[in-house]
Amino acid sequence: MDSAAIDKSKITQLLANFVVNSKPDDIPEHVYTEATRSFLNWAGCAVGGSIHLTLDRTLAAIRPFAGEGQATVLGRGEKLDLLHAALLNGISSHVFDFDDTHLRTIIHPAGPIASALLPLAETRPMTGREFLHAFILGVEVECRIGNSVYPEHYDRGWHITGTAGVFGAAAAAGKILGLNAQQMTWALGIAATQSSGLREMFGTMCKPFHPGRAAQNGLLAAHLAAQNFTSSDRGIEAPRGFAHVLSTKFDPAEITEKLGDTWEISLNTYKPFACGIVIHPALDGCIQLRNAHGLKAENIASIDLKVHPLVLELTGKTEPRTGLEGKFSVYHSCAAAIVYGRCGEHEYADEVVIDPQIVALRRKVRAEAEKGIHEDQVRVAITTTDGKVHELFVEHAIGSLDRPLSDEELDHKVRDLCEPVLGASGADRFIALCRNVANSSTLASIIEAGIPTR
Amino acid sequence: MDSAAIDKSKITQLLANFVVNSKPDDIPEHVYTEATRSFLNWAGCAVGGSIHLTLDRTLAAIRPFAGEGQATVLGRGEKLDLLHAALLNGISSHVFDFDDTHLRTIIHPAGPIASALLPLAETRPMTGREFLHAFILGVEVECRIGNSVYPEHYDRGWHITGTAGVFGAAAAAGKILGLNAQQMTWALGIAATQSSGLREMFGTMCKPFHPGRAAQNGLLAAHLAAQNFTSSDRGIEAPRGFAHVLSTKFDPAEITEKLGDTWEISLNTYKPFACGIVIHPALDGCIQLRNAHGLKAENIASIDLKVHPLVLELTGKTEPRTGLEGKFSVYHSCAAAIVYGRCGEHEYADEVVIDPQIVALRRKVRAEAEKGIHEDQVRVAITTTDGKVHELFVEHAIGSLDRPLSDEELDHKVRDLCEPVLGASGADRFIALCRNVANSSTLASIIEAGIPTR
Repeated sequence: MDSAAIDKSKITQLLANFVVNSKPDDIPEHVYTEATRSFLNWAGCAVGGSIHLTLDRTLAAIRPFAGEGQATVLGRGEKLDLLHAALLNGISSHVFDFDDTHLRTIIHPAGPIASALLPLAETRPMTGREFLHAFILGVEVECRIGNSVYPEHYDRGWHITGTAGVFGAAAAAGKILGLNAQQMTWALGIAATQSSGLREMFGTMCKPFHPGRAAQNGLLAAHLAAQNFTSSDRGIEAPRGFAHVLSTKFDPAEITEKLGDTWEISLNTYKPFACGIVIHPALDGCIQLRNAHGLKAENIASIDLKVHPLVLELTGKTEPRTGLEGKFSVYHSCAAAIVYGRCGEHEYADEVVIDPQIVALRRKVRAEAEKGIHEDQVRVAITTTDGKVHELFVEHAIGSLDRPLSDEELDHKVRDLCEPVLGASGADRFIALCRNVANSSTLASIIEAGIPTR
Repeated sequence: MDSAAIDKSKITQLLANFVVNSKPDDIPEHVYTEATRSFLNWAGCAVGGSIHLTLDRTLAAIRPFAGEGQATVLGRGEKLDLLHAALLNGISSHVFDFDDTHLRTIIHPAGPIASALLPLAETRPMTGREFLHAFILGVEVECRIGNSVYPEHYDRGWHITGTAGVFGAAAAAGKILGLNAQQMTWALGIAATQSSGLREMFGTMCKPFHPGRAAQNGLLAAHLAAQNFTSSDRGIEAPRGFAHVLSTKFDPAEITEKLGDTWEISLNTYKPFACGIVIHPALDGCIQLRNAHGLKAENIASIDLKVHPLVLELTGKTEPRTGLEGKFSVYHSCAAAIVYGRCGEHEYADEVVIDPQIVALRRKVRAEAEKGIHEDQVRVAITTTDGKVHELFVEHAIGSLDRPLSDEELDHKVRDLCEPVLGASGADRFIALCRNVANSSTLASIIEAGIPTR
């Protein structure tokens, strides 16, 4: 789109028009391929996370008023009303902090969108290609809005997956509901006025609540707009709209430039480790050194990390007490990675975090911010008790855009997540169906394969 | 509470403790009396607003997923699930912009709280006194949090009735659910991370959506906390908590000082006119001059207003096209007040806003900000075609704290609102039951009287 021709007072309408007018064939096939990988990664996280205590408590809380029988909570047997199914899916897909990452904004793109679309597929049947098309558009809206306010918005304290996610969910659901341009504009406005989620909540059950609510609220926005529930036409760009109220930066060109030519989902990445992306370089480095030199916990004198400042800001907990807190501790994470040679969900179990061997090792981890170290880099030096120093500089962490997970590695990750819930053959079947989503005439078999057989 | 003893890092916990430990008899009877007036005013607005198109569209939108049979939408026959009933009540109570006002913050206190409590009374029976006790506590939490961030929070673009209201709804519902101190702290945290609502939405259906969502989200927060769904213990005061992320001002003393000794609901006011409070002095002045001098539209050459700057900022629409837009036009409002001698919901009907006589008169209204004019003041000069100038300075507008509506005037207002829905005798019965809420053993008869007999 020609940026000279953009009317900066009509950003919301422009974005709405883009979504409404998009046709499935406008989007290159390689974008669908990446969308399928994003969906598979999301589905694995949602199934794996579905057995978490957070889900049990949410279900107990909503039981007195949630409807039944409409849409499936992935990984579980329960069928709830459409909105609550979206909430539960969104929570489970983020509860392990293992979902996808749009590195430029630290948005976890799939959660708010897929969590809304999959339940919708049960009340509003759609083909796999329609699903992916809406999913791609939702990610585009969410990440472009995120780009336009990042990093000031995030720095201010907003959990951007929640705040930007609600727009993506509204756009994707609105596309499936067939909203016209005015309705889509309103849907984005109704999303804007529900945008919420505070970073203060990191380390509590409210963190995964954010993508869940974004999915649920975006779905509500689309349904309201479909009935001509009015909103501002300028929910994003107006002086008292989303961008200016929730950020001190707003760059509308991030929304308008090359819209329809580039695809943000192509920039999506998938975590090899079940924790915040900022610790991944350190984990990658520790595991590489461990494997190269056969390092064992009992022989380690110290682990010294030179990291990007965000590592300490986001994951600086020196004495985590629970699995959830462990995810916000670079110290625990590196200790667990050395002991187990990986850092999946198991390594963040409560009992692992308080394991004396891990605790002893984590106290030997020192992390220091170093100027010039990028967010996907780390400098690791591990000193063994015999005085030897093993050093490594990680230029791009595994799972980053420059070193993406292969399809095989991604399947392996998803299998690890799904096996405890679906069993080994169930997990394989689920993965195969997700991989084939683009060719599916409905989402029904995927949803069915995503719950355990009784 | 002794401010010297306050730990400023524990504001959320302190507020939670206050709510949890409060006993009905801790609160003076005159506070209950004002709470009853607030409830009556809210109930009248909710019944009156229930026939608005916004409600029809919301109901059509949520039909595909809302539950049934649990809680009543006031003024209508429908019974929905608890959360959606709260949403609908909240929307209807604010859709006419006729609800109560906490003048210091421009919060409309009752909407988010009563809209949550009344449906809850159907799943969790409570006496009228328990209801009022929780209601008073909810208003206290909501308005004190509002005070702590006002005006910077509002100036930034937040619709404070939504953003602060969710805390009040969570606290009130949490009190009824019997949360302990930790759970109440979490409920306030879950409220904090849902806090939302943009001023950009004024003049659209999203404005009344805000108190509706605040009610619904606060109710959800309380139910989640009751199941030990965790949140931050410092949702309000933490560096990335509500106050610092959504405002540039935070004065914790507004929350802690005299907590339990003074009651914000005693500062509540009730609008005599169905529009934003900032226009009330102008309407009061116009109607006083009209009645004193028998002024008629056709004899008026000009209406000159000297107003507080907020009047122009909030209600400066010179050419409104709909009833909803008319509420944001000081020009239309004064014209209608001159023609009809009042400014209730009827004067904001779409057909009144486009009535040629009203349009002609509104174009003769000039409004100018004047230094030194307070928010509840106005200087009005009406010039008639014979050259005479009638002047009036309104020191305190009718409905302000200094010139409150009498019980009789309040009943009259509520009757006007309820009659089109409940009929004359139905309205009288409903008013009598609301007036007696403190002595009611349940809320059932009030709820039943609040829907039309078929």
